[in-house]
Amino acid sequence: MPSLLEIAEHNTHDDCWVVIHGKAYDVTGFLDEHPGGSAIIMKFAGKDATKKFDPIHPPDTLDKFLSPECYMGEVEDEAEEEEEEELTEEELARAEMVTRKPSLDAIYNLTDFEHVARHTMDPTAWAYYSSGSDDEITMRENRNAYQRIFFRPRIMVDVSKIDMSTTMLGCKTSVPFYITATALGKLGHPDGETVLTRAAGKEGVIQMIPTLASCAFDEIVDAADGTQTQWFQLYVNADRAVCRKLVEHAEARGVRGLFITVDAPQLGRREKDMRSKHFEETTDVQQEEEEEEKIDRLQGAARAISSFIDTSLSWKDVAWFRSITKMPILLKGVQSVDDALLAAEHGCDGIVLSNHGGRQLEFAPSAIEILTEVMPALRARGVDTNKFQVYVDGGVRRGSDIIKAICLGAKGVGLGRLFLYAMSTYGEQGVRKAINILQDEIEMNMRLLGVTSIAQLSEKYVDVLGLKNGRGVPEDYLFREVYQPMALPRFKSKL
Amino acid sequence: MPSLLEIAEHNTHDDCWVVIHGKAYDVTGFLDEHPGGSAIIMKFAGKDATKKFDPIHPPDTLDKFLSPECYMGEVEDEAEEEEEEELTEEELARAEMVTRKPSLDAIYNLTDFEHVARHTMDPTAWAYYSSGSDDEITMRENRNAYQRIFFRPRIMVDVSKIDMSTTMLGCKTSVPFYITATALGKLGHPDGETVLTRAAGKEGVIQMIPTLASCAFDEIVDAADGTQTQWFQLYVNADRAVCRKLVEHAEARGVRGLFITVDAPQLGRREKDMRSKHFEETTDVQQEEEEEEKIDRLQGAARAISSFIDTSLSWKDVAWFRSITKMPILLKGVQSVDDALLAAEHGCDGIVLSNHGGRQLEFAPSAIEILTEVMPALRARGVDTNKFQVYVDGGVRRGSDIIKAICLGAKGVGLGRLFLYAMSTYGEQGVRKAINILQDEIEMNMRLLGVTSIAQLSEKYVDVLGLKNGRGVPEDYLFREVYQPMALPRFKSKL
Amino acid sequence: MPSLLEIAEHNTHDDCWVVIHGKAYDVTGFLDEHPGGSAIIMKFAGKDATKKFDPIHPPDTLDKFLSPECYMGEVEDEAEEEEEEELTEEELARAEMVTRKPSLDAIYNLTDFEHVARHTMDPTAWAYYSSGSDDEITMRENRNAYQRIFFRPRIMVDVSKIDMSTTMLGCKTSVPFYITATALGKLGHPDGETVLTRAAGKEGVIQMIPTLASCAFDEIVDAADGTQTQWFQLYVNADRAVCRKLVEHAEARGVRGLFITVDAPQLGRREKDMRSKHFEETTDVQQEEEEEEKIDRLQGAARAISSFIDTSLSWKDVAWFRSITKMPILLKGVQSVDDALLAAEHGCDGIVLSNHGGRQLEFAPSAIEILTEVMPALRARGVDTNKFQVYVDGGVRRGSDIIKAICLGAKGVGLGRLFLYAMSTYGEQGVRKAINILQDEIEMNMRLLGVTSIAQLSEKYVDVLGLKNGRGVPEDYLFREVYQPMALPRFKSKL
Amino acid sequence: MPSLLEIAEHNTHDDCWVVIHGKAYDVTGFLDEHPGGSAIIMKFAGKDATKKFDPIHPPDTLDKFLSPECYMGEVEDEAEEEEEEELTEEELARAEMVTRKPSLDAIYNLTDFEHVARHTMDPTAWAYYSSGSDDEITMRENRNAYQRIFFRPRIMVDVSKIDMSTTMLGCKTSVPFYITATALGKLGHPDGETVLTRAAGKEGVIQMIPTLASCAFDEIVDAADGTQTQWFQLYVNADRAVCRKLVEHAEARGVRGLFITVDAPQLGRREKDMRSKHFEETTDVQQEEEEEEKIDRLQGAARAISSFIDTSLSWKDVAWFRSITKMPILLKGVQSVDDALLAAEHGCDGIVLSNHGGRQLEFAPSAIEILTEVMPALRARGVDTNKFQVYVDGGVRRGSDIIKAICLGAKGVGLGRLFLYAMSTYGEQGVRKAINILQDEIEMNMRLLGVTSIAQLSEKYVDVLGLKNGRGVPEDYLFREVYQPMALPRFKSKL
Repeated sequence: MPSLLEIAEHNTHDDCWVVIHGKAYDVTGFLDEHPGGSAIIMKFAGKDATKKFDPIHPPDTLDKFLSPECYMGEVEDEAEEEEEEELTEEELARAEMVTRKPSLDAIYNLTDFEHVARHTMDPTAWAYYSSGSDDEITMRENRNAYQRIFFRPRIMVDVSKIDMSTTMLGCKTSVPFYITATALGKLGHPDGETVLTRAAGKEGVIQMIPTLASCAFDEIVDAADGTQTQWFQLYVNADRAVCRKLVEHAEARGVRGLFITVDAPQLGRREKDMRSKHFEETTDVQQEEEEEEKIDRLQGAARAISSFIDTSLSWKDVAWFRSITKMPILLKGVQSVDDALLAAEHGCDGIVLSNHGGRQLEFAPSAIEILTEVMPALRARGVDTNKFQVYVDGGVRRGSDIIKAICLGAKGVGLGRLFLYAMSTYGEQGVRKAINILQDEIEMNMRLLGVTSIAQLSEKYVDVLGLKNGRGVPEDYLFREVYQPMALPRFKSKL
Repeated sequence: MPSLLEIAEHNTHDDCWVVIHGKAYDVTGFLDEHPGGSAIIMKFAGKDATKKFDPIHPPDTLDKFLSPECYMGEVEDEAEEEEEEELTEEELARAEMVTRKPSLDAIYNLTDFEHVARHTMDPTAWAYYSSGSDDEITMRENRNAYQRIFFRPRIMVDVSKIDMSTTMLGCKTSVPFYITATALGKLGHPDGETVLTRAAGKEGVIQMIPTLASCAFDEIVDAADGTQTQWFQLYVNADRAVCRKLVEHAEARGVRGLFITVDAPQLGRREKDMRSKHFEETTDVQQEEEEEEKIDRLQGAARAISSFIDTSLSWKDVAWFRSITKMPILLKGVQSVDDALLAAEHGCDGIVLSNHGGRQLEFAPSAIEILTEVMPALRARGVDTNKFQVYVDGGVRRGSDIIKAICLGAKGVGLGRLFLYAMSTYGEQGVRKAINILQDEIEMNMRLLGVTSIAQLSEKYVDVLGLKNGRGVPEDYLFREVYQPMALPRFKSKL
Repeated sequence: MPSLLEIAEHNTHDDCWVVIHGKAYDVTGFLDEHPGGSAIIMKFAGKDATKKFDPIHPPDTLDKFLSPECYMGEVEDEAEEEEEEELTEEELARAEMVTRKPSLDAIYNLTDFEHVARHTMDPTAWAYYSSGSDDEITMRENRNAYQRIFFRPRIMVDVSKIDMSTTMLGCKTSVPFYITATALGKLGHPDGETVLTRAAGKEGVIQMIPTLASCAFDEIVDAADGTQTQWFQLYVNADRAVCRKLVEHAEARGVRGLFITVDAPQLGRREKDMRSKHFEETTDVQQEEEEEEKIDRLQGAARAISSFIDTSLSWKDVAWFRSITKMPILLKGVQSVDDALLAAEHGCDGIVLSNHGGRQLEFAPSAIEILTEVMPALRARGVDTNKFQVYVDGGVRRGSDIIKAICLGAKGVGLGRLFLYAMSTYGEQGVRKAINILQDEIEMNMRLLGVTSIAQLSEKYVDVLGLKNGRGVPEDYLFREVYQPMALPRFKSKL
Repeated sequence: MPSLLEIAEHNTHDDCWVVIHGKAYDVTGFLDEHPGGSAIIMKFAGKDATKKFDPIHPPDTLDKFLSPECYMGEVEDEAEEEEEEELTEEELARAEMVTRKPSLDAIYNLTDFEHVARHTMDPTAWAYYSSGSDDEITMRENRNAYQRIFFRPRIMVDVSKIDMSTTMLGCKTSVPFYITATALGKLGHPDGETVLTRAAGKEGVIQMIPTLASCAFDEIVDAADGTQTQWFQLYVNADRAVCRKLVEHAEARGVRGLFITVDAPQLGRREKDMRSKHFEETTDVQQEEEEEEKIDRLQGAARAISSFIDTSLSWKDVAWFRSITKMPILLKGVQSVDDALLAAEHGCDGIVLSNHGGRQLEFAPSAIEILTEVMPALRARGVDTNKFQVYVDGGVRRGSDIIKAICLGAKGVGLGRLFLYAMSTYGEQGVRKAINILQDEIEMNMRLLGVTSIAQLSEKYVDVLGLKNGRGVPEDYLFREVYQPMALPRFKSKL
């Protein structure tokens, strides 16, 4: 039973202890293996790191990654009441906004949730959720692309009854969209991904469970109501044994689809996130080191979850996955016609056209644009697109977006960030409201479009002329900010 | 003769009375049938609802919808002088703007009326008139589309005399535009739609009477000068007997054209309107309910008029309408070539290409763009477009817009909102001035274009290259507002 | 010799005298004939109107339009020292800006002149010069169109010597541009158009003399240096005898080209100008009339010069002009391929592609865009474009614009407004500096383009791909201003 | 040994001495030959000019351009402590920003350097570095063009190892980009171009040495580490003997490539630079001359380096260069397909597609756009593009830009300005960090694109549809600033 005083002495790179949930660990040997880098651990060397640890790590993390001998015992003395840190002006302002949060009744669309989130969430969490890579051009293009598609509505159709239920990977679902996998749910809500699970269950929506959840996988499955459909998103670990364990366990727990992420051999540079992290980590640094050779590569929360991803994943691995599971296997993050065809050839059960919400390769095309190329190519190759199913995600925040994607051939449409915002601001009620809003929008749009079922939606209802040709010039915020506009002559000074 | 005190006790969902124009009604049985929802009635349960009732309902509403036994007698006591509500700061500011309203002489174009309206109208009325569905992209595209059409002017033509008169559905009219049907005129002016009638009569302009007028149909017909042309816009009621009565009555009263609205099986989500309504209805709620299952579906003034529209209307109904009236029958709200051709096949006398002013299906195309597809298709099919007439509305606010539509084949062009703004700000004089401005603009533009009569206008005078290709990326105000732009490094704080 | 007191009594519509330059005139009979309308005269009924009269009317106006018996004699009493009018805050601010005017050294391009003009000119004059018709979309498109043309520069060419001199209508000129005709020069400078004449003479630039100059025609010719080239722009008067006199006189005085304006059978609605005028004329009106039938048609300074233009001008008139002059005859204001061909067929010596600086038909195409259609069409028709010469104006403010137009086939390029701004701000020196800046820009651009003479410029040096396709969506300022953007939910009020 | 007092008397155009580094020179005879004009020298007539002289001139300038008899001896008296000039408010604000400069750790991309530079650099230096010609449309199009190219990423590729090294002109280099030649490095850093040399050496990056460096050529070569590759950019002097000496010396010192600038027979008008210069030079002018004939042609720092460039350079000169050196010869500033083909025909070893960073011909196309035309044309002509190498520069500031250019056929990509900003703000560490950022970005993007070596990059990875078609309308800042938007009616004044 080490005392806090003792622990505090283990605060160097060569001898580093931390306290998590009242237990002391010697993490010296783990420092260099930590996916998030050693710097963030060193900040808590000899101290209690629980508060920072919790939202980023599932509860079973320590058992998984530290050998038993690292455990140094329970902390002897009662953890002192954490000294109330004095809040900065910014923090006070945000705290006030939280008290003034609009009632859920005042929310009319999914963007409203984002608005509330932006003004009430913890800035680090907001930065992690909201950021995209580089100049966020792909992230914004994802949204923008949907806005360039117009409808070709039909009239004089009996639209008394609208049925928006459909089937994805053989499972019935009440709506043509699903909650896609996103990491670190506890950054937004103390209950993490289980909030999404419960809302999804009540509304009949499919949820995709992320590898990098902050809840443990089993917690998320346990939160399900027993009948609801869950899928599993997999980051492939270089250690295939770990992979296999994850996949087999998911299948055993009743998961109905395996989505292998293929667009993230390295996590993208998300500068908002990096800046947010930088700001936080450097505020109490007394003295800036300026060693000649020091090259700072702090890369924010994103970097914290990247190391366990196998950069050597390739087509030959598909067969192996097929050998270890009977779940449908889909590749998540396909971004080109050629890879869509290859996925079909390699016997995948489908693909998700996705650029990872604009968080990975900047200037990746939007999923909806690629969809208009992929579907004809698959059909031309004779692929049965009811069996080899195509999903899309990225940029979706209106019922009309979902209908457009379905018209263009998608089996279903994933939303991630927007559900996170709903969860972070109003919890389970928020997520359900978000689902209900989409349902309302879809119902209304189907009716006004002159269709009554998902199966009727087809390319003839959309005008995609502007999709390819109308991208426009992406707004380059950094350049705009830094560019000094031409000036006109100054009038002389007043005398 | 119930007293106010007695009435006040009937203030629950199971026993609800309201007072309208000094008469008490038991509306308990009607609560769930009310097109505008029960919530808005409950707000006045046991109280006088006249002020809220009047601008939304024609005077004959109560007789039509309540059975005689609901009438509980005249209110016994003199209605007390309504307590002067204290005005909010916003209301005071608006009241001041009303006193500072520019003189009518200072109005030079139709947008000027909108400007005055925006700053002087009651916010609920403004929200109802000005709103469109979802992100209002279609509403703005309606305007935008006209701006992408350029002229091909001719010179050296004797343009001493310009004749802009024309014929619509066989009726002479002094101008190539008409006042189209819009609901709830009393929100903008106490005399409602009759203001438009009188102005239209004096200026020789055709008016289309709306089903959902706040004046009674007969009031509007009575306000006409006896020689002027009126048309009737019909929302088809599920009860065809009601429909038949309306149509036969219109024909009997001399109406010269029947325009069946086909783009509104459900009324669009107009968020500005919903927010405005929400704000108003919730200000005096003491305590917010947060019941788990409560899903708020307040949908503003728009929702208030939607329930009586038949969602099952379909092509087979055309023959029935033909059987009950000799008036020309036109479908209002056609939005595709296919439906234009079907309308001709089903023996309609014409169509109005319209997306309901951008208030229904978001991402519906603009009427003017569809017009460029519809006219060639009709001609290719051998349809005589002098008999099967094509009208357009939506986005029109300049004489040049009207000329463009006529050049592209429209028989006439409808304006709705802009006349409402003229009416709401300057009454009959305003509407006449709006008409005169359009006349001036049309005359000047015809002269500068080198044409002297409406019949001369043709496709050779317009360049539509930019119409299809130049939509650009619609401004997404919500996303722009909520998106946090990329940031540059912060300079350190001052010490 | 009437006294001021006597004169002051003649201040009604039926008996109206005014004083101009110390002479009294009875203008009662002229009120209704006044091109600028009677209202503006009535404002000075019984008073001295000299100050308002001068900048708009050439000195010989009164002799031309009033019969001798209208002259009532010199004013008896010494004109009193005009009471110093108290300046408004706006006027004081402008007066201060005049004192702070940047030195001419600080001017680096033609837009700089406009900047100084905007902040120092009399607002009425500024409104008249700067305004365009309707929403000024064509006026801005004129500028915009040049910006969409890129160069295809060549290298490794000996560009030691650049010769930018050329020939227009057989006259040598030092530069490929000319000063085009613009009305009412005295609004900007007390010496009016003669300022332009003197600068043009010194710099070897051709000037086109406007019909509606504020200087008398002979004053402008007299200001020339004897060797410089002047052209004459003609508004065709319905009275052909007047026309003939003007043309014959011009030819007699040595004018070398006749440019007949064909794009202005009616003057455009220029709302900025109208609003400016309205504001000025109504400030001291005590009491607004609100007669029912009154329809205000005040149309600013533009209207003031419109009535004498013949709306019946047509192709048959070309032969007549040919019969009365040996000067080359060009049509100014051609805006289509068809009319360019017709002009050639009718034996004109050339055309000016122009939309009147965006002051006439809104949505007229830019001259530079039409040029790309007209030149190939003329060549295809076998027209010798060295004999039938094509000029352009509108939107030009950089040397590169001029080079682009020459590359695309123009013989010369007219600039109007920008020279007015240079004149209004720095007089003759300003105009010369403007010319020098253009020369500098042209020289540099020719050198960097790899050409050494005007004759070498051809289509191969320009990339016009974006010209037709890239118009974009014109900014609609009024709509933007009046449109209320979508809103996000409000946070609750602070308590 | 002249005294300061004596020297001060030589302060006229006919007798002008200046002091540089404690030595007096009689520059009377040189005044009219000074490339930067005589005005700037006259400002220091009879005074010490060292401070102004240093950042613009290499140390060996005086020896090169002044004959020995101009040297008037060392200054006798100790240079007095320069009187501390009082700082303006603007200067004080900038000085404060310098103290608050973000730490290098806070820099995440190359634009961040520009941001810091803009707020901390001397305004004259900033103006010189940051400015482009005319309205800077080409300068901004350079950036913009890259933003219109999207990727076509591939997945399921083993990307464990990324190799971004490549070969340029036969020399190995660690990265596919190089530091291109830019003038006047000492404006940004007291050590000038040697800062770039040292950083380039440490990071394995090629540097192109500019003719117009502020360091002497030999200083820059001496600063290299002996193994690193340097190229030489040549402005061709009219005096070919001077040229020959420069080239032979460069080759003798081990330079591995000769880049002849061909896009600058005259230096462009860079108005920001001119205005900055104007402002500086006129602040202490007592009295503005307003002589009639004076035409101001001050052209900023840019003009200061332009006179020694031969405007007669042409294709016949290529053979001569070939005769005097064995270095590979490349033309820098090619901007068209035709000239690319001619360069190959004339036996050049390559070209740099470049518009000089948007500092020369306004409306020159972007290099990246021309690249898409040049490569197919070269291949069609049978040119081996491994031998005849194509480089690009202009607008590059992200790793993704570099990858796009390589995909489209470039052998390497030059960056100039951005390295200057890194150098001006953080010196050698800054330049190295800039290089490291680009490396990080390139590595990440290659991995996410599914490629592992530079050789794999090809056109199939990019979507250039928007490049040609999507230019949009360039923002015209001056016009936007000066254009007075349409106005709506004013509400009446408050009473």
